[in-house]
Amino acid sequence: MGLAAMTRSPNALAKTLYAPEHAADTGILRPLTPDSLTPARMSLRERIYAELDALAIVDPHTHINPLAPASTTLADVLGYHYYTELAHSAGLAREAIEEPELPPREKVRRLVEHLGPLENTIQYSWLIEMLREFFGFYGERLSVDNWEAVYEHAADVMARPHWAETVLEKSKLRAVFLTNEFDDPLSGFDTNVYVPCLRTDDLVFHLAKPEVRSRLERATGIAATNAATLRQAIAKLFEHFRKHNVRACAISLPPSFAPRQVGGAAADAAIAALLAKGIDADAPRLDDAANFVFWTLAEHCRDFALPFDLMIGVNRGVYAAGVYQGRDLYDSRVSLIQYRELFNAFPRVTFPISVLASVTNQELVSYAWIFPNVITSGHWWYSNTPAYIEHDLAARLEAVPETKQIGYYSDMYKLEFALPKFRMYKRVLAKVLAERFVVDRGWSEERAVALGRRVLMENTERVFGYA
Amino acid sequence: MGLAAMTRSPNALAKTLYAPEHAADTGILRPLTPDSLTPARMSLRERIYAELDALAIVDPHTHINPLAPASTTLADVLGYHYYTELAHSAGLAREAIEEPELPPREKVRRLVEHLGPLENTIQYSWLIEMLREFFGFYGERLSVDNWEAVYEHAADVMARPHWAETVLEKSKLRAVFLTNEFDDPLSGFDTNVYVPCLRTDDLVFHLAKPEVRSRLERATGIAATNAATLRQAIAKLFEHFRKHNVRACAISLPPSFAPRQVGGAAADAAIAALLAKGIDADAPRLDDAANFVFWTLAEHCRDFALPFDLMIGVNRGVYAAGVYQGRDLYDSRVSLIQYRELFNAFPRVTFPISVLASVTNQELVSYAWIFPNVITSGHWWYSNTPAYIEHDLAARLEAVPETKQIGYYSDMYKLEFALPKFRMYKRVLAKVLAERFVVDRGWSEERAVALGRRVLMENTERVFGYA
Amino acid sequence: MGLAAMTRSPNALAKTLYAPEHAADTGILRPLTPDSLTPARMSLRERIYAELDALAIVDPHTHINPLAPASTTLADVLGYHYYTELAHSAGLAREAIEEPELPPREKVRRLVEHLGPLENTIQYSWLIEMLREFFGFYGERLSVDNWEAVYEHAADVMARPHWAETVLEKSKLRAVFLTNEFDDPLSGFDTNVYVPCLRTDDLVFHLAKPEVRSRLERATGIAATNAATLRQAIAKLFEHFRKHNVRACAISLPPSFAPRQVGGAAADAAIAALLAKGIDADAPRLDDAANFVFWTLAEHCRDFALPFDLMIGVNRGVYAAGVYQGRDLYDSRVSLIQYRELFNAFPRVTFPISVLASVTNQELVSYAWIFPNVITSGHWWYSNTPAYIEHDLAARLEAVPETKQIGYYSDMYKLEFALPKFRMYKRVLAKVLAERFVVDRGWSEERAVALGRRVLMENTERVFGYA
Repeated sequence: MGLAAMTRSPNALAKTLYAPEHAADTGILRPLTPDSLTPARMSLRERIYAELDALAIVDPHTHINPLAPASTTLADVLGYHYYTELAHSAGLAREAIEEPELPPREKVRRLVEHLGPLENTIQYSWLIEMLREFFGFYGERLSVDNWEAVYEHAADVMARPHWAETVLEKSKLRAVFLTNEFDDPLSGFDTNVYVPCLRTDDLVFHLAKPEVRSRLERATGIAATNAATLRQAIAKLFEHFRKHNVRACAISLPPSFAPRQVGGAAADAAIAALLAKGIDADAPRLDDAANFVFWTLAEHCRDFALPFDLMIGVNRGVYAAGVYQGRDLYDSRVSLIQYRELFNAFPRVTFPISVLASVTNQELVSYAWIFPNVITSGHWWYSNTPAYIEHDLAARLEAVPETKQIGYYSDMYKLEFALPKFRMYKRVLAKVLAERFVVDRGWSEERAVALGRRVLMENTERVFGYA
Repeated sequence: MGLAAMTRSPNALAKTLYAPEHAADTGILRPLTPDSLTPARMSLRERIYAELDALAIVDPHTHINPLAPASTTLADVLGYHYYTELAHSAGLAREAIEEPELPPREKVRRLVEHLGPLENTIQYSWLIEMLREFFGFYGERLSVDNWEAVYEHAADVMARPHWAETVLEKSKLRAVFLTNEFDDPLSGFDTNVYVPCLRTDDLVFHLAKPEVRSRLERATGIAATNAATLRQAIAKLFEHFRKHNVRACAISLPPSFAPRQVGGAAADAAIAALLAKGIDADAPRLDDAANFVFWTLAEHCRDFALPFDLMIGVNRGVYAAGVYQGRDLYDSRVSLIQYRELFNAFPRVTFPISVLASVTNQELVSYAWIFPNVITSGHWWYSNTPAYIEHDLAARLEAVPETKQIGYYSDMYKLEFALPKFRMYKRVLAKVLAERFVVDRGWSEERAVALGRRVLMENTERVFGYA
Repeated sequence: MGLAAMTRSPNALAKTLYAPEHAADTGILRPLTPDSLTPARMSLRERIYAELDALAIVDPHTHINPLAPASTTLADVLGYHYYTELAHSAGLAREAIEEPELPPREKVRRLVEHLGPLENTIQYSWLIEMLREFFGFYGERLSVDNWEAVYEHAADVMARPHWAETVLEKSKLRAVFLTNEFDDPLSGFDTNVYVPCLRTDDLVFHLAKPEVRSRLERATGIAATNAATLRQAIAKLFEHFRKHNVRACAISLPPSFAPRQVGGAAADAAIAALLAKGIDADAPRLDDAANFVFWTLAEHCRDFALPFDLMIGVNRGVYAAGVYQGRDLYDSRVSLIQYRELFNAFPRVTFPISVLASVTNQELVSYAWIFPNVITSGHWWYSNTPAYIEHDLAARLEAVPETKQIGYYSDMYKLEFALPKFRMYKRVLAKVLAERFVVDRGWSEERAVALGRRVLMENTERVFGYA
């Protein structure tokens, strides 16, 4: 711990919180009790993990703000919706953490008081691992007894020059993909490190809102009043993004969505209805408009040679009184058969597909096994926990061509989270490779590592054309 | 084996059936062949199991009759629907075991003849473990060659004074929750040991039947002829149950059910239709009535501060020619999104949720992670087998706050089943804690045991207010 | 490697491709790295595997052509849809392998060039294991550098006298069940080895096509112009098949299918519509016809005492531009509740059920646990990979009576595939028996093996009456 931080440390416990000289964790699996696993198997998994953890990777889906990519206090860290929503679920009032003008330190205090019930969760383990790796924290729990020292020290560290670059380097991240609103100016950052991706949720699902149409007109200079002008506006967006190194188009989709082509006349009628009635337009018109925009986006992905990330299955706002970003859930009764027409219509567009529910994963495996343009992508949100990753990953690794799997993305909002989230994934990947390939199928360790490297690193670079 | 029993033993094999002096099994995992697992891992799992098995627990959902809680012969044991339905499924005619006036001994004889095909099932293992623990049985199989001695001896043991208390003590059960019909007088037993819960299936789904309405009127003194009087009657039921230490309201629900609030006028119309036409009332009226009652129950759970156990997903009577209690199955295409309106409308009611199909478990995990009033509850019926428990439990333990998980309930009809059913659960729990927390996440054994204690014991007491 | 083959070998690498004297692989698990698994557990799994692998078995579902049961070149092997569709999915143009008059050697060359991305798949492991076992191949990969020598040598071996019998013997297959079109003459082969099964997809789902009706008339001599004559024609088919040792009736069904009885008048109307309009008949008429035929088939299964294999869940032609047999996918939103009426109506017909999606497996377990006439059957197509087999098999073994499980069938088109596919299954079976029965439940190894023998061999013989 730095001397400055020690001096300001608000409590004496600080001395025991940090490892001597911020000794970097060796980083692999947490220390294993010697009798819990044979040394032999432990070392197989560990060796594979170590090989994978040494790779410099690209994170192909995040929500990073490139103008403020890293955290400045623990409030940025604990403000991640996983912590706020879990703490709220376990008893913390939403108002307590969404109070206007709440100082970051107080926000952290309130959250820390409610972290106890979350200590079992994998999300809590991300927090602890991050604190250890980036801030030399040495404890097992962030608690009311120790948080202040951690807060202070972390703030000091985060305030150092080039903190974001330090995080990227320590996390071995070559680049992180962004999720940019369609009217993002895409300026003020290095697009080789913070790589633009065009997020299209608003265009597809909220075009009925006047403000979305205004944003579109401002961004493109085109008043989209019918199918033709809307198409022109969309083309303009793609051109803008292309100028700024865009690598993908992306969208999240509700379980009910089943894309279909909408003819020009129907599209014109739908857009006219949106202009006339906004979000009060008839449901069939809203649906026609959404499908017209979606299909037009797919056409532009084809014409601009961009992968179209489909993140399938989320219902927005299910828990209306939930915390910010903690209101969405899903109906797992969704099928990729809903995308049959799309996959057939766009053989030259690559669709990296994420599914929200693990029960949809087998369909994803099968569709990626049959359709050349469908590839598996990451472990999303409610399926991003070890038990589901393990089940889903094992199924993918044994039946989807190895070139068609994007292993993982962090989905993070602040850079500090890539490290613990990717590590979680790499541990599961090492486990599956060790148990199901080396042990069950007699593969050599080298071959298993090569497969891991493929899905963790190489495919991401090739699929998205990141050199 | 007691001398008296030996004397009456109908065959000489009895001598080999029982351990010397009824030596209690050490109880843990069955003896492991030395080469099947390293001693090291074996002892980790075993040590965690032993800690969990030492806890005195509350069983928060059973179908125990408090006036006859324990078995009197093996016919009570083998009459459990798991054995009758599995034996029937494997070839035993329903008539053979549902013959009127069939003496218990003959019923057991007929069942034992058909147990062979069931020996692989986990349900059969419950039987053998129970026979070992309670009756000193020492065999691996209950067969035509040995059942008579076991029958006799078990009958002797069950006839001893305070047998039910003996079972409770040996099973380390502090209390078992009941499932009481709404018109149960709730008298004649200690409600601190046999804790009333109000079962509401009949009120919600069978109010169209005249006998159910008659029972309601007799129980409450109120003729429920419209929404207002029906609400009064329901309030009366809650008051009656509150006087008798009620700890929960409970219901099992078909996959199609999607609760919604029904206005007073619609409710009046629905009840009028029920009174006029009974079960021949139009389906929309029946559905309105069911929803009105259900919503009114939720309101009373709120007002009486009772958790509302929802057991979601069963279709009744699918196999019409099946044995008693062996006719129900399900359609796994159900989603918790159907409960969206309910969960939002009753933030102060705790909903312990059981789902019938493992494919619904991830939704349960996610909804419990987001909604403060949703908690996970046990492993129900067709999902109450080790492979599904392991998959579902692992997912819960890593993403639902640890305070929001009711680990297990036995669902038993006779007290003797809590021991083998809870042990099955505890073995899986110990396995998951050992492999996924101690090994995969580097937790200490103590911390893993503490998490196990939380979900197995502490949460049940806190959620249901059992001191 | 035979001298002749060596002489003709197109490249010098051949010398290193084959083991000395075609040394048969010991066949068990691929060699395990000593530190990947403790010798103790390795030997438990291996011992169980060895016992299971020694059994002579019947393969109860294949697509073997009894007049050309084995392969003649590697084109037959690599022409299996798993390789063509996976290679196509990974980038190989359909036209490249479906070119008319393409010589087999050139087809293999083109496929081998695209096998690289498939090396992770379990299907690729079938290929390598087959090459090792049947053709003494000693490599890890079939590549552009070595395929020619393998091609030549395999062609030589396949050309030897009695190659099919050699494959059967080496694969320890007593018999393979066929999938015969309804108008198959069933002559020219030994029906005790190549056992007829009546495939009924065309009758149920394609009777609207004039060519199907023509085939039916030619096969039976009956013009099926109404319900009565259609029933007569179907009876004639069953009689023909019975004369030739038929052991089952079989059909694959789309997720939307929900069988129901159709009355005579409705059936007459439906058939009249088919005769008048063919496939342009109204959808309800087509559906009535399909259901009438299906129900009539079930009646004949009852009358002829034949099991009715239902393979539930496939959507045909989802990827229209896919390779031959590589166009089908599915919608996993299917439930066995759709078969409720059928299962209740035919208590004396045994229904071996295969489900396409693993998420339907729990329903299958539950329905087989309750309905005496429902049994579990194999691991089909998209669920026929180790991760899904392991999950699904474990669930079956612990809750379905052991007499009601058909463990596995190969579904193969050429005899060489039974060996690697059954071995994959036996490895998973050995793993589940070792881990979940011997370790978790304390079973003896002998008892575990006996359970494995039951599901792998004995049940198949008993259920289908194969002596």
